[in-house]
Amino acid sequence: MSDTHDPFLAALDAYAAAVAAKDVDAFAALYDDDVHVFDLWGRWELRGLAAWRAMAQEWFGSLGAETVAVTYAQAHSHTGGELAYGHAFLTYTAHAADGARLRSLDNRISLALARRDGRWKIVHEHTSAPVDHASGKAVLKRDGAG
Amino acid sequence: MSDTHDPFLAALDAYAAAVAAKDVDAFAALYDDDVHVFDLWGRWELRGLAAWRAMAQEWFGSLGAETVAVTYAQAHSHTGGELAYGHAFLTYTAHAADGARLRSLDNRISLALARRDGRWKIVHEHTSAPVDHASGKAVLKRDGAG
Repeated sequence: MSDTHDPFLAALDAYAAAVAAKDVDAFAALYDDDVHVFDLWGRWELRGLAAWRAMAQEWFGSLGAETVAVTYAQAHSHTGGELAYGHAFLTYTAHAADGARLRSLDNRISLALARRDGRWKIVHEHTSAPVDHASGKAVLKRDGAG
Repeated sequence: MSDTHDPFLAALDAYAAAVAAKDVDAFAALYDDDVHVFDLWGRWELRGLAAWRAMAQEWFGSLGAETVAVTYAQAHSHTGGELAYGHAFLTYTAHAADGARLRSLDNRISLALARRDGRWKIVHEHTSAPVDHASGKAVLKRDGAG
């Protein structure tokens, strides 16, 4: 990531490019070695780049001929010296090899980034979806509503 | 919040004290006027202190004679100049007026804080629980596992 632009937006763009290309190395390069992730799915936390890289490898490997497009909306960020944070809504849309849209889900992302040796790295990532109180289920579509 | 201590830990301590006392003013004082919240429950986001203060008023008012103890574990934070972030696991435990433990749930919290006029304020809060892929339900107990 360049440090001449907003490091949060640069991270989102590079994340989307890495996912689109199913490029594990490009994905892993966005994160600090000691990254702590609170991921939407399954686990309470995931620590360290090796574990997070393994998640990406499994995810990209599971896609077969499908590709996933990541877009974001309502991004807000703030950079102060060697630290930055930002948050946004993400939409993940899976496409078949022929380009057909297969499925889509939304989530919320918050990132903290630190500048190490002149490069911004993600040190903390938190993704989630809000939970419906009555059903206990995660709501995975935003439908444009707040 | 004092700015001589870790602003994230100071915020968690002050948050727990405000919740224990059901003190809406003390709760609201922790947050920036322009706070953006990704809350565990119901909504995709909540913007601005007035909306967040109304949430606290409704929450505290709904408790009747109950009180809620907030504790945290595995807190990690980083402060850089006028910006700080941190993340932790929170446990909310409700007690009856006689002190009996009624129920408890866990969640994950990430905060971004900014120093404004010498005081740290929470500018972004993200709370969530991981979602079980098979059932689509949020897992609200950590059970000590990672």
